[in-house]
Amino acid sequence: MDRLSLNQRTTERWSVAEAVDGCVRAGLQWIGLWREPVQACGVAQAARLVADAGLRVSSLCRGGFITAFPGSSRDAALDDNRRAIDEAAALGAECLVLVVGGLPDGSRDLAGARSRVADGVGALVPYAEASGVRLALEPMHPLYCADRGVLSTLDQALDMAAPFAPSSVGVVVDTFHVWWDPVVEAAIARAAGRIASFQVCDWITPFPADALLSRGMMGDGHIDFRHFRRLVEAAGYDGPIEVEIFNADLWAADPDEVVALMRKRYEEHVLG
Amino acid sequence: MDRLSLNQRTTERWSVAEAVDGCVRAGLQWIGLWREPVQACGVAQAARLVADAGLRVSSLCRGGFITAFPGSSRDAALDDNRRAIDEAAALGAECLVLVVGGLPDGSRDLAGARSRVADGVGALVPYAEASGVRLALEPMHPLYCADRGVLSTLDQALDMAAPFAPSSVGVVVDTFHVWWDPVVEAAIARAAGRIASFQVCDWITPFPADALLSRGMMGDGHIDFRHFRRLVEAAGYDGPIEVEIFNADLWAADPDEVVALMRKRYEEHVLG
Repeated sequence: MDRLSLNQRTTERWSVAEAVDGCVRAGLQWIGLWREPVQACGVAQAARLVADAGLRVSSLCRGGFITAFPGSSRDAALDDNRRAIDEAAALGAECLVLVVGGLPDGSRDLAGARSRVADGVGALVPYAEASGVRLALEPMHPLYCADRGVLSTLDQALDMAAPFAPSSVGVVVDTFHVWWDPVVEAAIARAAGRIASFQVCDWITPFPADALLSRGMMGDGHIDFRHFRRLVEAAGYDGPIEVEIFNADLWAADPDEVVALMRKRYEEHVLG
Repeated sequence: MDRLSLNQRTTERWSVAEAVDGCVRAGLQWIGLWREPVQACGVAQAARLVADAGLRVSSLCRGGFITAFPGSSRDAALDDNRRAIDEAAALGAECLVLVVGGLPDGSRDLAGARSRVADGVGALVPYAEASGVRLALEPMHPLYCADRGVLSTLDQALDMAAPFAPSSVGVVVDTFHVWWDPVVEAAIARAAGRIASFQVCDWITPFPADALLSRGMMGDGHIDFRHFRRLVEAAGYDGPIEVEIFNADLWAADPDEVVALMRKRYEEHVLG
């Protein structure tokens, strides 16, 4: 249980203060935070709440969205990422998760968007290094390629991270995003030293009507979590295991009950 | 226009006879058929209608669904695939498309399911070869990995096809399924001699509520079709280009208008 982390989007209605209290009640040691509720709380206050509770921040979600063409919207995106790096530093987060963004409106040039992501990461690395923040490239399920993340596989994320020190640019292994990949075993082995975050949530069927809320609690779907935990451990990862689930039914439920269910399912499906 | 093929699911309400007439009215030379409407028409009658109209069958959809564990349901699936091979032979189809199937109920063993697909293809090849029918492995978008097709990338399909003659086991390149793949360019080059079918339809956003009806008309979404046409042509493919779109709005529209729109969009977005 000392590795389990509640990503606060799993209990979406909780503020930072409520999520911190919920983690303490549940005996957790880690929490994953999101920028919007952190900003609503105030960054310094959020950092204080977390520290006073004896928690550590497994990740801050999220930076990224850096596929815009050169110009003012790209500049604004990079500025926003620098603010996200500041926030991650203030929170002492293990990493800042980057969801890289989809195709710009009207563009069908996927290779170009991917190339701009690589450039954008390069532009952010010096600032992140100076701030002591590790960037974590998150490959997204190909379902989101057009509108959320043109980074589609773990191998692609590793290729993009390769020019930088592993302590500066790591990758996220989120079971929901990578479980289908026929070469994921080799990719996770290759990711040794680069795994900045390990996230778990399930792929459920039938596929929910809202593609952004299509994630399930571990055990409700088709993913073999023990398999993935063993793979990341074989690659040397022994950090927090974060549960990040976007799901309308879970969001409607009592958050303490969601956390209790998460603990139970973690024990049954991820550990053991 | 001599390569354009109407897959009859694009005009879902049309029977085989109506689709054949519709293709003739639109000046098309190819049609892609589905087993259920072919069976409703009668296989011999369908073959006669197509031949009398001077059309050729670009593909028969679909065989596959061979992920069951050994036993009666696997035996039944293989028997059904042999009937599909008979039908493809009777229609003179360029290939029989195989959608390989998802995880069996309650199973989370993805590697096992994939291995059973490879075994199943091996079991069908002698029958297909004796019938003069080319099997076409269709990698499906990872979105469908759990419940439709555990074959998720073109490289994986090529690995599975590799033990067999290219004339016996080919692959389908469907833009909808493969467009996101960061290594698709190399995979299509590698597929030279194995491309049994080239299908086009678009990836649209926001993602529709019904994941099975999420495809769009070329030009309505995010895919660069010319790029993919050039890639398959560079790999030596000069066969039919089939338009297969599952979309509730198109199914509600007048089928002749859908075919006219398909011709126009094909000219604008695939050719040229």
